Amino acid sequence: MKSKTSFFVSLILLGLPIITSGADIKQSHDINYPNGWQKWASIAVSHRTDNNTIRIILGNDVAVEAARVGRVNPWPDGAILGKVVWKDIQLDNWEEAIVPGQFVHAEFMLKDSKKYSKTYGWGWARWVGQDQKPFNKGAQVCISCHTPVKDRDWVFTDPAQFPNIK
Amino acid sequence: MKSKTSFFVSLILLGLPIITSGADIKQSHDINYPNGWQKWASIAVSHRTDNNTIRIILGNDVAVEAARVGRVNPWPDGAILGKVVWKDIQLDNWEEAIVPGQFVHAEFMLKDSKKYSKTYGWGWARWVGQDQKPFNKGAQVCISCHTPVKDRDWVFTDPAQFPNIK
Repeated sequence: MKSKTSFFVSLILLGLPIITSGADIKQSHDINYPNGWQKWASIAVSHRTDNNTIRIILGNDVAVEAARVGRVNPWPDGAILGKVVWKDIQLDNWEEAIVPGQFVHAEFMLKDSKKYSKTYGWGWARWVGQDQKPFNKGAQVCISCHTPVKDRDWVFTDPAQFPNIK
Repeated sequence: MKSKTSFFVSLILLGLPIITSGADIKQSHDINYPNGWQKWASIAVSHRTDNNTIRIILGNDVAVEAARVGRVNPWPDGAILGKVVWKDIQLDNWEEAIVPGQFVHAEFMLKDSKKYSKTYGWGWARWVGQDQKPFNKGAQVCISCHTPVKDRDWVFTDPAQFPNIK
């Protein structure tokens, strides 16, 4: 009988991607992995020229609905914001276009004003790299960086304008 | 009985946004408005430093599934790619972050190798501004710009790497 390792090696030789279940991913700051975020709708985008990363800011349904109507200070309980971060690179066929290179991490803010009252109403979580290794150095690391926007419910993102089309 | 105009004026005075139905929006290059694109998942992002715009590239389910597994040359029939374009601005609270300012337009490529065989397998459409005015200057305008990537099925976008998590 084949070992699990040789099974995965076979998959790699076949060129099939190894797909991990979100249920197998460990918690970050006692927060469960937010399965399905790769299909969430967009709220904004940013290109950070100080650390050469490019980002999509996305959200679960509660967050996206709030973003579209500007109900963001405070954000409603149940909102989850995700920030997906890549190193920035130039596009081969259009050098003036800066686009995603290596995937860095996905980080999340989960709004629950009661559950997370000790961390300003938000749960703070991050999973690093393609294998989504949980970040567990403490929410204070996240909060410190977000302190300049404490009067904006701790969120840097201004939701992008979308046309009002149903 | 109130007129339609005074009804809308009342809505504005009440501070309610006017929401247009996608069904009311006219065709661009004989293509119907792709309702619901604001909730589509992301495929990539780009910051164009030559015309100071920042973009999210999103897709319908067919396009996103193809993008995630790299089945993009050719893209499958049924795929719709959307490019949502904003002028770029600096974020107030983090000046090194370039983020979306004024909404410019949303443009789409619809893959159907038979229906659109005369325009390289793609339908080309664009709707401009918050009121989504259809662009109807001819698909050739779009195609000319995309000619450098004709060997990449006419698509500039490299799908961003996402973690393989289900």
